[in-house]
Amino acid sequence: MIKFFEKEPYSPVEYSYEAERILYKGKTKYQDIMVIENNTFGKILILDGIVQLTEKDEFFYHEMLTHIVMHSHHAPKRVAVIGGGDGGTVREVLKHQGVEKLYFVEIDEEVIKIAREFFPSLSSGLDDPRVQIKVMDGAEFIKRTDDLDIIIVDSTDIIGFARTLFTIDFFQSAKKSMNNRGMLVTHTESLHFHKEIVIEMQEMLKKVFPVVDLYTTPIATYPGNWWTFSIGGTDIDPRTINRHCEIKTRYYDSEIHLQSFLTKGFYRKLINRELDW
Amino acid sequence: MIKFFEKEPYSPVEYSYEAERILYKGKTKYQDIMVIENNTFGKILILDGIVQLTEKDEFFYHEMLTHIVMHSHHAPKRVAVIGGGDGGTVREVLKHQGVEKLYFVEIDEEVIKIAREFFPSLSSGLDDPRVQIKVMDGAEFIKRTDDLDIIIVDSTDIIGFARTLFTIDFFQSAKKSMNNRGMLVTHTESLHFHKEIVIEMQEMLKKVFPVVDLYTTPIATYPGNWWTFSIGGTDIDPRTINRHCEIKTRYYDSEIHLQSFLTKGFYRKLINRELDW
Repeated sequence: MIKFFEKEPYSPVEYSYEAERILYKGKTKYQDIMVIENNTFGKILILDGIVQLTEKDEFFYHEMLTHIVMHSHHAPKRVAVIGGGDGGTVREVLKHQGVEKLYFVEIDEEVIKIAREFFPSLSSGLDDPRVQIKVMDGAEFIKRTDDLDIIIVDSTDIIGFARTLFTIDFFQSAKKSMNNRGMLVTHTESLHFHKEIVIEMQEMLKKVFPVVDLYTTPIATYPGNWWTFSIGGTDIDPRTINRHCEIKTRYYDSEIHLQSFLTKGFYRKLINRELDW
Repeated sequence: MIKFFEKEPYSPVEYSYEAERILYKGKTKYQDIMVIENNTFGKILILDGIVQLTEKDEFFYHEMLTHIVMHSHHAPKRVAVIGGGDGGTVREVLKHQGVEKLYFVEIDEEVIKIAREFFPSLSSGLDDPRVQIKVMDGAEFIKRTDDLDIIIVDSTDIIGFARTLFTIDFFQSAKKSMNNRGMLVTHTESLHFHKEIVIEMQEMLKKVFPVVDLYTTPIATYPGNWWTFSIGGTDIDPRTINRHCEIKTRYYDSEIHLQSFLTKGFYRKLINRELDW
Protein backbone atom coordinates (compact mmCIF):
# COMPACT_ATOMS: atom_id res chain seq x y z
CA MET A 1 0.00 0.00 0.00
CA ILE A 2 1.42 3.38 -1.04
CA LYS A 3 0.28 6.56 0.70
CA PHE A 4 -0.25 9.58 -1.54
CA PHE A 5 0.20 12.99 0.11
CA GLU A 6 -1.49 15.81 -1.74
CA LYS A 7 0.82 18.74 -2.52
CA GLU A 8 -1.90 21.40 -2.28
CA PRO A 9 0.32 24.48 -1.95
CA TYR A 10 -1.95 26.71 0.12
CA SER A 11 -4.09 24.40 2.19
CA PRO A 12 -3.61 24.49 5.98
CA VAL A 13 -4.65 20.83 6.12
CA GLU A 14 -2.71 18.18 4.17
CA TYR A 15 -4.85 15.41 2.70
CA SER A 16 -3.46 11.96 2.04
CA TYR A 17 -4.92 8.87 0.40
CA GLU A 18 -4.08 5.19 0.33
CA ALA A 19 -3.15 4.20 -3.20
CA GLU A 20 -3.97 0.54 -3.85
CA ARG A 21 -2.18 0.87 -7.15
CA ILE A 22 -0.53 3.59 -9.18
CA LEU A 23 -2.12 3.10 -12.61
CA TYR A 24 -0.21 5.82 -14.44
CA LYS A 25 2.64 8.22 -13.78
CA GLY A 26 3.93 10.60 -16.44
CA LYS A 27 5.16 14.09 -17.20
CA THR A 28 3.83 16.36 -19.95
CA LYS A 29 5.05 19.72 -21.28
CA TYR A 30 2.81 21.36 -18.68
CA GLN A 31 2.46 19.13 -15.66
CA ASP A 32 2.93 15.80 -13.88
CA ILE A 33 0.04 13.38 -14.33
CA MET A 34 -0.74 10.51 -12.00
CA VAL A 35 -3.70 8.12 -11.80
CA ILE A 36 -4.09 6.10 -8.61
CA GLU A 37 -6.66 3.55 -7.45
CA ASN A 38 -8.24 4.02 -4.02
CA ASN A 39 -10.67 1.62 -2.32
CA THR A 40 -13.21 4.32 -1.48
CA PHE A 41 -12.88 6.80 -4.32
CA GLY A 42 -12.01 4.51 -7.21
CA LYS A 43 -9.63 6.03 -9.75
CA ILE A 44 -8.19 9.41 -8.81
CA LEU A 45 -6.68 11.87 -11.34
CA ILE A 46 -3.78 13.86 -9.91
CA LEU A 47 -2.10 16.79 -11.71
CA ASP A 48 1.10 18.29 -10.26
CA GLY A 49 0.40 16.44 -7.03
CA ILE A 50 -3.11 17.84 -6.61
CA VAL A 51 -6.27 15.70 -6.73
CA GLN A 52 -8.41 16.84 -9.68
CA LEU A 53 -11.21 14.32 -9.44
CA THR A 54 -12.20 10.95 -8.09
CA GLU A 55 -14.64 8.55 -9.76
CA LYS A 56 -16.66 8.45 -6.54
CA ASP A 57 -17.49 12.13 -6.15
CA GLU A 58 -16.62 13.90 -9.43
CA PHE A 59 -20.31 14.40 -10.23
CA PHE A 60 -20.76 16.96 -7.44
CA TYR A 61 -18.20 19.23 -9.06
CA HIS A 62 -19.03 18.62 -12.74
CA GLU A 63 -22.79 18.87 -12.32
CA MET A 64 -22.64 21.98 -10.18
CA LEU A 65 -20.07 23.70 -12.41
CA THR A 66 -22.24 23.06 -15.47
CA HIS A 67 -25.95 23.01 -14.70
CA ILE A 68 -26.43 26.26 -12.78
CA VAL A 69 -25.62 28.47 -15.80
CA MET A 70 -27.08 25.95 -18.25
CA HIS A 71 -30.46 26.18 -16.48
CA SER A 72 -30.50 29.92 -15.88
CA HIS A 73 -29.61 30.76 -19.50
CA HIS A 74 -32.72 30.78 -21.70
CA ALA A 75 -31.24 28.95 -24.70
CA PRO A 76 -27.56 27.95 -24.52
CA LYS A 77 -26.50 26.90 -28.04
CA ARG A 78 -22.82 27.85 -28.31
CA VAL A 79 -20.78 26.72 -25.30
CA ALA A 80 -17.04 26.77 -24.59
CA VAL A 81 -15.46 24.55 -21.94
CA ILE A 82 -11.98 25.84 -21.05
CA GLY A 83 -9.84 23.15 -19.43
CA GLY A 84 -11.37 20.07 -17.87
CA GLY A 85 -9.39 17.67 -20.04
CA ASP A 86 -11.02 14.76 -18.23
CA GLY A 87 -14.23 15.46 -20.15
CA GLY A 88 -16.57 15.51 -17.14
CA THR A 89 -17.86 19.00 -17.86
CA VAL A 90 -18.32 18.22 -21.56
CA ARG A 91 -20.37 15.17 -20.56
CA GLU A 92 -22.67 17.38 -18.48
CA VAL A 93 -23.06 20.13 -21.10
CA LEU A 94 -24.03 17.56 -23.75
CA LYS A 95 -27.02 16.49 -21.64
CA HIS A 96 -28.64 19.72 -22.84
CA GLN A 97 -30.19 18.90 -26.22
CA GLY A 98 -30.30 22.54 -27.32
CA VAL A 99 -26.51 22.77 -27.43
CA GLU A 100 -25.41 23.00 -31.07
CA LYS A 101 -21.68 23.70 -30.72
CA LEU A 102 -19.34 22.82 -27.85
CA TYR A 103 -15.75 24.07 -28.04
CA PHE A 104 -13.63 21.93 -25.73
CA VAL A 105 -10.38 23.83 -25.17
CA GLU A 106 -7.66 21.95 -23.31
CA ILE A 107 -4.02 23.04 -23.35
CA ASP A 108 -2.61 19.63 -22.40
CA GLU A 109 -3.51 16.93 -24.93
CA GLU A 110 -2.03 14.26 -22.64
CA VAL A 111 -4.79 14.83 -20.08
CA ILE A 112 -7.39 14.05 -22.74
CA LYS A 113 -5.53 10.85 -23.67
CA ILE A 114 -5.33 9.77 -20.03
CA ALA A 115 -9.03 10.49 -19.57
CA ARG A 116 -9.94 8.40 -22.60
CA GLU A 117 -7.84 5.53 -21.25
CA PHE A 118 -8.62 5.58 -17.50
CA PHE A 119 -11.84 7.62 -17.12
CA PRO A 120 -14.25 6.51 -19.86
CA SER A 121 -17.25 7.49 -17.70
CA LEU A 122 -16.01 11.10 -17.88
CA SER A 123 -14.59 11.27 -21.40
CA SER A 124 -17.61 9.52 -22.96
CA GLY A 125 -18.84 12.68 -24.69
CA LEU A 126 -15.64 13.73 -26.41
CA ASP A 127 -16.56 12.10 -29.74
CA ASP A 128 -20.00 13.68 -29.88
CA PRO A 129 -20.38 15.50 -33.25
CA ARG A 130 -21.27 18.73 -31.43
CA VAL A 131 -17.86 18.76 -29.72
CA GLN A 132 -14.89 20.49 -31.35
CA ILE A 133 -11.67 19.75 -29.48
CA LYS A 134 -9.11 22.58 -29.48
CA VAL A 135 -5.72 21.77 -27.99
CA MET A 136 -4.57 25.28 -27.10
CA ASP A 137 -4.43 27.94 -24.41
CA GLY A 138 -7.95 28.90 -23.34
CA ALA A 139 -7.11 32.60 -23.12
CA GLU A 140 -5.91 32.57 -26.75
CA PHE A 141 -9.01 30.69 -27.90
CA ILE A 142 -11.35 33.16 -26.23
CA LYS A 143 -9.65 36.11 -27.97
CA ARG A 144 -10.47 34.59 -31.40
CA THR A 145 -14.04 33.50 -30.69
CA ASP A 146 -17.39 35.27 -30.56
CA ASP A 147 -21.14 34.81 -30.09
CA LEU A 148 -20.72 32.37 -27.18
CA ASP A 149 -23.71 31.80 -24.90
CA ILE A 150 -21.82 30.08 -22.08
CA ILE A 151 -18.15 29.87 -21.05
CA ILE A 152 -17.31 27.25 -18.44
CA VAL A 153 -13.79 27.48 -17.01
CA ASP A 154 -12.87 24.06 -15.62
CA SER A 155 -9.23 24.70 -14.79
CA THR A 156 -6.68 23.44 -12.31
CA ASP A 157 -6.04 25.56 -9.21
CA ILE A 158 -5.83 29.32 -9.64
CA ILE A 159 -2.13 29.39 -8.93
CA GLY A 160 0.20 27.78 -11.47
CA PHE A 161 -0.10 28.04 -15.25
CA ALA A 162 -3.91 28.23 -15.11
CA ARG A 163 -3.51 31.71 -13.59
CA THR A 164 -4.01 33.28 -17.06
CA LEU A 165 -7.66 32.17 -16.81
CA PHE A 166 -8.15 34.21 -13.64
CA THR A 167 -7.03 37.67 -14.79
CA ILE A 168 -8.96 40.82 -15.66
CA ASP A 169 -7.62 40.47 -19.22
CA PHE A 170 -9.14 37.01 -19.56
CA PHE A 171 -12.49 38.08 -18.14
CA GLN A 172 -12.57 41.06 -20.53
CA SER A 173 -11.84 38.83 -23.55
CA ALA A 174 -14.45 36.41 -22.26
CA LYS A 175 -17.04 39.17 -22.16
CA LYS A 176 -16.15 40.22 -25.73
CA SER A 177 -16.45 36.60 -26.90
CA MET A 178 -20.02 36.33 -25.58
CA ASN A 179 -23.24 37.48 -27.14
CA ASN A 180 -25.43 39.92 -25.22
CA ARG A 181 -26.87 37.27 -22.87
CA GLY A 182 -23.64 35.43 -22.22
CA MET A 183 -22.59 33.87 -18.91
CA LEU A 184 -19.23 32.71 -17.58
CA VAL A 185 -18.75 30.33 -14.67
CA THR A 186 -15.50 29.29 -13.04
CA HIS A 187 -14.52 27.49 -9.86
CA THR A 188 -12.87 29.83 -7.34
CA GLU A 189 -11.46 27.57 -4.61
CA SER A 190 -12.71 27.12 -1.04
CA LEU A 191 -14.18 29.85 1.16
CA HIS A 192 -12.86 28.02 4.21
CA PHE A 193 -9.24 27.76 3.10
CA HIS A 194 -8.79 30.31 0.29
CA LYS A 195 -11.04 33.20 1.29
CA GLU A 196 -8.73 35.87 -0.11
CA ILE A 197 -8.72 34.24 -3.56
CA VAL A 198 -12.51 33.97 -3.60
CA ILE A 199 -12.85 37.64 -2.68
CA GLU A 200 -10.20 38.70 -5.23
CA MET A 201 -12.00 36.80 -8.00
CA GLN A 202 -15.41 38.22 -7.08
CA GLU A 203 -13.99 41.75 -7.10
CA MET A 204 -12.24 41.15 -10.43
CA LEU A 205 -15.44 39.83 -12.03
CA LYS A 206 -17.38 42.85 -10.77
CA LYS A 207 -14.99 45.13 -12.68
CA VAL A 208 -15.99 43.38 -15.93
CA PHE A 209 -19.50 41.95 -15.67
CA PRO A 210 -22.80 43.66 -14.75
CA VAL A 211 -24.10 40.49 -13.06
CA VAL A 212 -21.74 38.69 -10.64
CA ASP A 213 -22.74 35.96 -8.21
CA LEU A 214 -21.28 33.09 -6.22
CA TYR A 215 -22.55 29.67 -5.19
CA THR A 216 -21.07 26.75 -3.30
CA THR A 217 -21.04 22.96 -3.22
CA PRO A 218 -19.46 20.56 -0.72
CA ILE A 219 -16.70 18.50 -2.36
CA ALA A 220 -15.02 16.19 0.16
CA THR A 221 -11.86 15.64 -1.89
CA TYR A 222 -10.95 19.31 -2.44
CA PRO A 223 -9.14 20.82 0.56
CA GLY A 224 -11.47 23.18 2.38
CA ASN A 225 -14.35 21.29 0.83
CA TRP A 226 -16.84 24.18 0.83
CA TRP A 227 -16.11 24.91 -2.82
CA THR A 228 -17.08 28.12 -4.58
CA PHE A 229 -18.15 28.81 -8.14
CA SER A 230 -18.19 32.38 -9.47
CA ILE A 231 -20.43 33.65 -12.24
CA GLY A 232 -20.02 36.70 -14.44
CA GLY A 233 -22.78 37.62 -16.88
CA THR A 234 -24.46 40.41 -18.75
CA ASP A 235 -28.09 40.38 -17.65
CA ILE A 236 -29.35 36.91 -16.65
CA ASP A 237 -29.86 36.24 -12.93
CA PRO A 238 -28.20 32.84 -12.30
CA ARG A 239 -30.51 32.22 -9.33
CA THR A 240 -33.47 32.06 -11.69
CA ILE A 241 -34.15 28.80 -13.52
CA ASN A 242 -35.30 30.11 -16.89
CA ARG A 243 -35.28 26.80 -18.66
CA HIS A 244 -36.77 23.61 -17.22
CA CYS A 245 -35.40 20.59 -19.02
CA GLU A 246 -35.53 16.90 -18.24
CA ILE A 247 -31.89 15.91 -17.89
CA LYS A 248 -30.52 13.10 -15.77
CA THR A 249 -28.28 14.27 -12.90
CA ARG A 250 -27.19 12.65 -9.66
CA TYR A 251 -26.77 15.68 -7.39
CA TYR A 252 -28.00 18.81 -9.15
CA ASP A 253 -31.70 19.59 -8.98
CA SER A 254 -33.80 22.76 -9.03
CA GLU A 255 -33.90 22.94 -5.22
CA ILE A 256 -30.11 22.60 -4.92
CA HIS A 257 -29.76 25.22 -7.65
CA LEU A 258 -31.47 27.81 -5.46
CA GLN A 259 -29.99 26.63 -2.15
CA SER A 260 -26.41 26.68 -3.43
CA PHE A 261 -26.21 30.45 -3.65
CA LEU A 262 -24.70 32.20 -0.67
CA THR A 263 -27.12 33.71 1.74
CA LYS A 264 -27.09 37.26 2.97
CA GLY A 265 -25.44 35.87 6.08
CA PHE A 266 -21.92 34.92 7.16
CA TYR A 267 -20.43 33.93 3.81
CA ARG A 268 -21.93 36.84 1.91
CA LYS A 269 -20.63 39.28 4.51
CA LEU A 270 -17.24 37.58 4.26
CA ILE A 271 -17.13 38.12 0.49
CA ASN A 272 -18.20 41.74 0.89
CA ARG A 273 -15.45 42.24 3.48
CA GLU A 274 -18.13 43.17 6.01
CA LEU A 275 -16.69 40.83 8.61
CA ASP A 276 -13.27 39.49 9.49
CA TRP A 277 -12.62 35.80 9.84
CA MET B 1 7.70 22.08 13.15
CA ILE B 2 5.88 18.88 14.10
CA LYS B 3 3.31 17.36 11.78
CA PHE B 4 0.17 15.97 13.43
CA PHE B 5 -1.58 13.14 11.58
CA GLU B 6 -5.19 12.67 12.59
CA LYS B 7 -6.07 9.12 13.62
CA GLU B 8 -9.67 9.27 12.35
CA PRO B 9 -10.40 5.54 12.24
CA TYR B 10 -12.91 5.43 9.41
CA SER B 11 -12.05 8.30 7.11
CA PRO B 12 -10.82 7.45 3.61
CA VAL B 13 -8.75 10.66 3.63
CA GLU B 14 -6.14 11.27 6.31
CA TYR B 15 -5.86 14.86 7.49
CA SER B 16 -2.63 16.27 8.89
CA TYR B 17 -1.76 19.61 10.44
CA GLU B 18 1.44 21.51 11.14
CA ALA B 19 1.84 21.92 14.89
CA GLU B 20 3.80 25.06 15.71
CA ARG B 21 3.84 23.93 19.31
CA ILE B 22 2.37 21.14 21.37
CA LEU B 23 0.83 23.02 24.30
CA TYR B 24 -0.42 20.01 26.23
CA LYS B 25 -0.19 16.24 26.08
CA GLY B 26 -1.79 14.01 28.69
CA LYS B 27 -3.74 10.83 29.35
CA THR B 28 -6.94 10.60 31.36
CA LYS B 29 -8.96 7.61 32.58
CA TYR B 30 -10.89 7.79 29.31
CA GLN B 31 -8.70 9.20 26.56
CA ASP B 32 -5.52 10.91 25.39
CA ILE B 33 -5.72 14.69 25.33
CA MET B 34 -3.52 16.93 23.21
CA VAL B 35 -3.61 20.67 22.52
CA ILE B 36 -1.56 21.94 19.60
CA GLU B 37 -1.03 25.39 18.12
CA ASN B 38 -1.48 25.81 14.35
CA ASN B 39 -0.83 29.01 12.36
CA THR B 40 -4.19 28.94 10.58
CA PHE B 41 -6.53 27.36 13.10
CA GLY B 42 -5.06 28.61 16.37
CA LYS B 43 -5.33 26.17 19.25
CA ILE B 44 -6.63 22.71 18.34
CA LEU B 45 -8.12 20.26 20.86
CA ILE B 46 -7.35 16.62 20.03
CA LEU B 47 -8.87 13.63 21.85
CA ASP B 48 -7.57 10.13 21.12
CA GLY B 49 -5.81 11.51 18.06
CA ILE B 50 -8.95 13.07 16.59
CA VAL B 51 -9.45 16.82 16.13
CA GLN B 52 -12.41 17.94 18.25
CA LEU B 53 -12.27 21.65 17.59
CA THR B 54 -10.10 24.51 16.41
CA GLU B 55 -10.33 28.09 17.65
CA LYS B 56 -10.71 29.25 14.05
CA ASP B 57 -13.81 27.33 13.04
CA GLU B 58 -15.42 25.88 16.20
CA PHE B 59 -18.32 28.33 15.94
CA PHE B 60 -19.73 26.58 12.86
CA TYR B 61 -20.18 23.38 14.85
CA HIS B 62 -21.23 24.82 18.21
CA GLU B 63 -23.68 27.34 16.79
CA MET B 64 -25.29 24.86 14.43
CA LEU B 65 -25.48 22.10 17.03
CA THR B 66 -27.21 24.46 19.46
CA HIS B 67 -29.33 27.09 17.76
CA ILE B 68 -31.50 25.02 15.43
CA VAL B 69 -33.38 23.30 18.27
CA MET B 70 -33.13 26.35 20.53
CA HIS B 71 -34.96 28.45 17.93
CA SER B 72 -37.55 25.88 16.92
CA HIS B 73 -38.52 25.08 20.51
CA HIS B 74 -41.10 27.58 21.80
CA ALA B 75 -39.60 28.10 25.27
CA PRO B 76 -36.50 26.07 26.18
CA LYS B 77 -35.99 26.42 29.94
CA ARG B 78 -34.42 23.14 31.05
CA VAL B 79 -31.50 22.06 28.83
CA ALA B 80 -28.98 19.22 29.14
CA VAL B 81 -25.67 19.27 27.27
CA ILE B 82 -24.15 15.77 27.17
CA GLY B 83 -20.43 15.87 26.50
CA GLY B 84 -18.74 18.87 24.94
CA GLY B 85 -16.31 19.31 27.83
CA ASP B 86 -14.77 22.26 26.00
CA GLY B 87 -17.82 24.35 26.92
CA GLY B 88 -18.56 25.66 23.43
CA THR B 89 -22.10 24.31 23.37
CA VAL B 90 -22.79 25.59 26.89
CA ARG B 91 -21.61 29.04 25.75
CA GLU B 92 -24.15 28.97 22.89
CA VAL B 93 -27.08 27.70 24.99
CA LEU B 94 -26.51 30.45 27.57
CA LYS B 95 -27.06 33.09 24.88
CA HIS B 96 -30.76 32.25 25.25
CA GLN B 97 -32.02 34.32 28.18
CA GLY B 98 -35.04 32.07 28.78
CA VAL B 99 -32.83 29.16 29.86
CA GLU B 100 -33.24 28.61 33.60
CA LYS B 101 -31.29 25.40 34.13
CA LEU B 102 -28.43 23.95 32.09
CA TYR B 103 -27.11 20.53 33.09
CA PHE B 104 -23.60 20.17 31.69
CA VAL B 105 -22.77 16.45 31.78
CA GLU B 106 -19.18 15.54 30.91
CA ILE B 107 -17.68 12.16 31.79
CA ASP B 108 -14.05 13.33 31.65
CA GLU B 109 -13.31 16.12 34.14
CA GLU B 110 -9.84 16.58 32.64
CA VAL B 111 -11.34 17.90 29.41
CA ILE B 112 -13.13 20.63 31.37
CA LYS B 113 -9.86 21.57 33.12
CA ILE B 114 -7.99 21.71 29.79
CA ALA B 115 -10.76 23.86 28.29
CA ARG B 116 -10.61 26.30 31.21
CA GLU B 117 -6.83 26.56 30.80
CA PHE B 118 -6.39 26.63 27.02
CA PHE B 119 -9.80 27.54 25.56
CA PRO B 120 -11.24 30.38 27.67
CA SER B 121 -13.29 31.62 24.71
CA LEU B 122 -15.18 28.31 24.78
CA SER B 123 -15.33 27.58 28.51
CA SER B 124 -16.37 31.13 29.42
CA GLY B 125 -19.90 30.11 30.40
CA LEU B 126 -19.09 27.26 32.76
CA ASP B 127 -19.35 29.41 35.88
CA ASP B 128 -22.73 30.87 34.95
CA PRO B 129 -25.17 30.31 37.87
CA ARG B 130 -27.62 28.54 35.52
CA VAL B 131 -25.02 25.85 34.78
CA GLN B 132 -24.83 22.72 36.92
CA ILE B 133 -21.75 20.64 36.04
CA LYS B 134 -22.17 16.88 36.38
CA VAL B 135 -19.06 14.79 35.94
CA MET B 136 -20.64 11.47 34.99
CA ASP B 137 -21.78 9.26 32.13
CA GLY B 138 -24.41 11.04 30.06
CA ALA B 139 -26.52 7.90 29.64
CA GLU B 140 -26.68 7.47 33.44
CA PHE B 141 -27.58 11.13 33.95
CA ILE B 142 -30.43 10.96 31.45
CA LYS B 143 -31.97 7.93 33.23
CA ARG B 144 -32.27 9.97 36.45
CA THR B 145 -33.57 13.22 34.99
CA ASP B 146 -36.95 14.44 33.78
CA ASP B 147 -38.85 17.41 32.39
CA LEU B 148 -36.06 18.41 30.00
CA ASP B 149 -36.96 20.71 27.10
CA ILE B 150 -33.77 20.18 25.10
CA ILE B 151 -31.03 17.52 25.10
CA ILE B 152 -27.89 18.38 23.12
CA VAL B 153 -25.46 15.50 22.63
CA ASP B 154 -22.02 16.99 21.94
CA SER B 155 -19.96 13.83 22.02
CA THR B 156 -16.78 12.55 20.47
CA ASP B 157 -17.10 10.28 17.42
CA ILE B 158 -19.81 7.62 17.45
CA ILE B 159 -17.31 4.82 17.75
CA GLY B 160 -15.32 4.52 20.98
CA PHE B 161 -16.70 5.01 24.47
CA ALA B 162 -19.22 7.63 23.32
CA ARG B 163 -21.09 4.81 21.56
CA THR B 164 -23.46 4.50 24.58
CA LEU B 165 -24.92 7.87 23.50
CA PHE B 166 -25.88 6.46 20.11
CA THR B 167 -27.99 3.44 21.10
CA ILE B 168 -31.72 2.81 21.05
CA ASP B 169 -31.55 2.50 24.87
CA PHE B 170 -30.09 5.97 25.18
CA PHE B 171 -32.62 7.52 22.82
CA GLN B 172 -35.47 5.84 24.73
CA SER B 173 -34.20 7.17 28.09
CA ALA B 174 -33.72 10.56 26.45
CA LYS B 175 -37.36 10.54 25.35
CA LYS B 176 -38.49 9.61 28.88
CA SER B 177 -36.37 12.42 30.34
CA MET B 178 -38.08 15.04 28.18
CA ASN B 179 -41.37 16.79 28.71
CA ASN B 180 -44.03 16.51 26.01
CA ARG B 181 -42.42 19.06 23.70
CA GLY B 182 -38.85 17.90 24.12
CA MET B 183 -36.19 17.80 21.42
CA LEU B 184 -32.87 15.99 21.17
CA VAL B 185 -30.07 16.92 18.78
CA THR B 186 -26.82 15.06 18.19
CA HIS B 187 -24.06 15.20 15.60
CA THR B 188 -24.06 12.14 13.34
CA GLU B 189 -20.80 12.32 11.36
CA SER B 190 -20.34 13.10 7.66
CA LEU B 191 -22.68 12.08 4.84
CA HIS B 192 -19.71 12.00 2.47
CA PHE B 193 -17.50 9.67 4.51
CA HIS B 194 -19.81 7.95 7.02
CA LYS B 195 -23.07 7.52 5.13
CA GLU B 196 -23.93 4.19 6.77
CA ILE B 197 -23.63 5.67 10.27
CA VAL B 198 -25.85 8.63 9.37
CA ILE B 199 -28.49 6.28 7.96
CA GLU B 200 -28.25 3.94 10.98
CA MET B 201 -28.75 6.85 13.39
CA GLN B 202 -31.70 8.26 11.45
CA GLU B 203 -33.38 4.85 11.43
CA MET B 204 -32.69 4.37 15.16
CA LEU B 205 -34.17 7.78 16.00
CA LYS B 206 -37.27 6.99 13.93
CA LYS B 207 -37.92 3.94 16.13
CA VAL B 208 -38.14 6.22 19.19
CA PHE B 209 -39.25 9.71 18.16
CA PRO B 210 -42.35 10.84 16.22
CA VAL B 211 -40.42 13.74 14.63
CA VAL B 212 -36.99 12.97 13.16
CA ASP B 213 -35.00 15.25 10.89
CA LEU B 214 -31.46 15.91 9.69
CA TYR B 215 -29.51 19.03 8.78
CA THR B 216 -25.96 19.71 7.67
CA THR B 217 -23.15 22.24 8.05
CA PRO B 218 -19.76 22.42 6.37
CA ILE B 219 -16.94 22.00 8.90
CA ALA B 220 -13.53 22.04 7.18
CA THR B 221 -11.67 20.36 10.04
CA TYR B 222 -13.90 17.28 10.37
CA PRO B 223 -13.06 14.58 7.79
CA GLY B 224 -15.77 14.50 5.16
CA ASN B 225 -16.64 18.04 6.12
CA TRP B 226 -20.31 17.88 5.13
CA TRP B 227 -21.34 17.30 8.74
CA THR B 228 -24.76 16.02 9.79
CA PHE B 229 -26.87 16.74 12.85
CA SER B 230 -29.83 14.51 13.69
CA ILE B 231 -32.90 15.60 15.61
CA GLY B 232 -35.45 13.51 17.49
CA GLY B 233 -38.50 15.18 18.98
CA THR B 234 -42.09 14.72 20.02
CA ASP B 235 -44.09 17.27 18.02
CA ILE B 236 -42.09 20.39 17.12
CA ASP B 237 -40.96 20.79 13.51
CA PRO B 238 -37.27 21.81 13.74
CA ARG B 239 -37.50 23.57 10.37
CA THR B 240 -39.88 26.10 11.87
CA ILE B 241 -38.42 29.00 13.82
CA ASN B 242 -40.99 29.36 16.60
CA ARG B 243 -39.00 31.81 18.69
CA HIS B 244 -37.25 34.86 17.30
CA CYS B 245 -34.67 36.13 19.73
CA GLU B 246 -31.88 38.62 19.37
CA ILE B 247 -28.77 36.62 20.10
CA LYS B 248 -25.28 37.25 18.74
CA THR B 249 -23.99 34.53 16.44
CA ARG B 250 -21.25 34.45 13.80
CA TYR B 251 -22.61 31.82 11.39
CA TYR B 252 -26.12 30.80 12.39
CA ASP B 253 -29.00 32.95 11.19
CA SER B 254 -32.65 32.34 10.31
CA GLU B 255 -31.84 31.86 6.62
CA ILE B 256 -29.10 29.29 7.34
CA HIS B 257 -31.51 27.57 9.76
CA LEU B 258 -33.89 26.82 6.91
CA GLN B 259 -31.23 26.15 4.25
CA SER B 260 -29.32 23.66 6.40
CA PHE B 261 -32.01 20.98 6.24
CA LEU B 262 -31.56 18.36 3.59
CA THR B 263 -33.58 18.80 0.49
CA LYS B 264 -35.80 16.21 -1.12
CA GLY B 265 -32.89 15.63 -3.51
CA PHE B 266 -29.69 13.57 -3.53
CA TYR B 267 -28.91 13.54 0.19
CA ARG B 268 -32.48 12.89 1.29
CA LYS B 269 -32.74 9.99 -1.16
CA LEU B 270 -29.42 8.71 0.18
CA ILE B 271 -30.73 8.69 3.74
CA ASN B 272 -33.94 6.97 2.67
CA ARG B 273 -31.88 4.33 0.84
CA GLU B 274 -33.61 5.37 -2.40
CA LEU B 275 -30.30 5.60 -4.23
CA ASP B 276 -26.94 3.93 -4.03
CA TRP B 277 -23.75 5.93 -3.78
